[in-house]
Amino acid sequence: MSVIEVADPADERLADYVRLRDVNLRKSLEAEHGLFMAEGEKVIRRALAAGFEPRSLLLTERRRDALNDVLDRVDAPLYVVGEPVAEALVGFDLHRGALASFRRRPLPGVEEVLRGARRVVVLEDIVDHTNVGAIFRSAAGLGIDAILLAPRCADPLYRRSVKVSMGAVFTQPYARLDDWHGGLEAVRALGFRLLALTPGAGSVPLADALEDAGPDRPIALLLGTEGDGLSSRWLESADAAVRIPMAGSDIDSFNVTAAAAIACYELVRTAP
Amino acid sequence: MSVIEVADPADERLADYVRLRDVNLRKSLEAEHGLFMAEGEKVIRRALAAGFEPRSLLLTERRRDALNDVLDRVDAPLYVVGEPVAEALVGFDLHRGALASFRRRPLPGVEEVLRGARRVVVLEDIVDHTNVGAIFRSAAGLGIDAILLAPRCADPLYRRSVKVSMGAVFTQPYARLDDWHGGLEAVRALGFRLLALTPGAGSVPLADALEDAGPDRPIALLLGTEGDGLSSRWLESADAAVRIPMAGSDIDSFNVTAAAAIACYELVRTAP
Repeated sequence: MSVIEVADPADERLADYVRLRDVNLRKSLEAEHGLFMAEGEKVIRRALAAGFEPRSLLLTERRRDALNDVLDRVDAPLYVVGEPVAEALVGFDLHRGALASFRRRPLPGVEEVLRGARRVVVLEDIVDHTNVGAIFRSAAGLGIDAILLAPRCADPLYRRSVKVSMGAVFTQPYARLDDWHGGLEAVRALGFRLLALTPGAGSVPLADALEDAGPDRPIALLLGTEGDGLSSRWLESADAAVRIPMAGSDIDSFNVTAAAAIACYELVRTAP
Repeated sequence: MSVIEVADPADERLADYVRLRDVNLRKSLEAEHGLFMAEGEKVIRRALAAGFEPRSLLLTERRRDALNDVLDRVDAPLYVVGEPVAEALVGFDLHRGALASFRRRPLPGVEEVLRGARRVVVLEDIVDHTNVGAIFRSAAGLGIDAILLAPRCADPLYRRSVKVSMGAVFTQPYARLDDWHGGLEAVRALGFRLLALTPGAGSVPLADALEDAGPDRPIALLLGTEGDGLSSRWLESADAAVRIPMAGSDIDSFNVTAAAAIACYELVRTAP
């Protein structure tokens, strides 16, 4: 671990940290270099604890000693920058004062994360990183065995997802389906009953569907995109449509974070 | 209903709509005039359906006919502005193209909203308008009888709360406690058992506490602020501390929107 003070926000060594709110830039930069960003001490500690390898760390002068206790385990440079340099570099006031760039690891395959799993959530095309992070946090907190992502679902390792998840994305097992159209068949072939969460007509209460299936039958709960919900393809691919019972007020749906939290709670409650 | 085209963003008649993202300005402006903002056609329709009186409506030229079907019921001017005027006025790209300024109504008192209620949520000091809106949406969707707000809890009728709630704030009964320190005693005096939701030690699973209380005992569930949770004063004022059972991973709490959704679900599930 070497500690390096850097005074120029355009310094090449800080290139991992540029313009963190420029989503398009960050997506291509992070994909090209196989990296992800962790923000804040707590989340950085969790990434290290989960065994991710840092490419570098960046602390502001005010917070330069914040991670001293873990630095002996870090084989990467620590850059210390003034607050104005940090702001010019990342594009906003870095009030938490701590960032780290980590190497991504290859994701496990679908079969691998489903091995031994009984309660699984499948996210179709959630586009908002905040929602992905919040769903991971709820799933990890409640003890969902695995999460599967449709090919176009937003990246759990994008900075905003990581932050909102409080680092749950580091430990919650997940994999990405490589095929949207037929990918669910592989899940069913592994013994899972596919339940599509939808407020639409013809659905049965989630709790009833889980009681019918029994605690030992592996369940994969399908959650659709914000606004439009599940695609008709996935609705038709499911074994049953399920709903969270509503009061019949003029509010006829939940936001996806709330729906996912309730659904994960019910999945785990019925399979202790 | 008169339709008035306005070309100058500084026109006095548009004063209700200035700088919608300037939170401090908006708070004082909206308090002074007793107004709130509704954004988007769906939410405006819900405010009208709930009987709120508009001070005025504002549509962009592209969306000028979007509310034609309800205008005969509206006794307020409709301002039509070009997209650049709208952006200069409100401070961002108004892509939904529809805003309305409504008169606030006096809130009912605590006793009034609690009359006949069995399942109630009490928000201590939620500071984020997005969270307040999401909690109202979940509570309304699930059928929570009433919401009580601590004196400093964020305003459900602030634009962002209204929007995230999808208009649930218009129909969900709620009241504000006028006293943080002693306000819970008034709730208890009305027969409610006070359950404090907290991940801390000594708490019992929420489902167990509700089963012990039985479906007919009125319950008020206390939810604390983002990050720090309930104050020690409110924890001590409660009859029992309850928790949502967690899996024991390194994720040791939920975000408040997820926690509220699960708690409201459990409150309603056990008192059909």
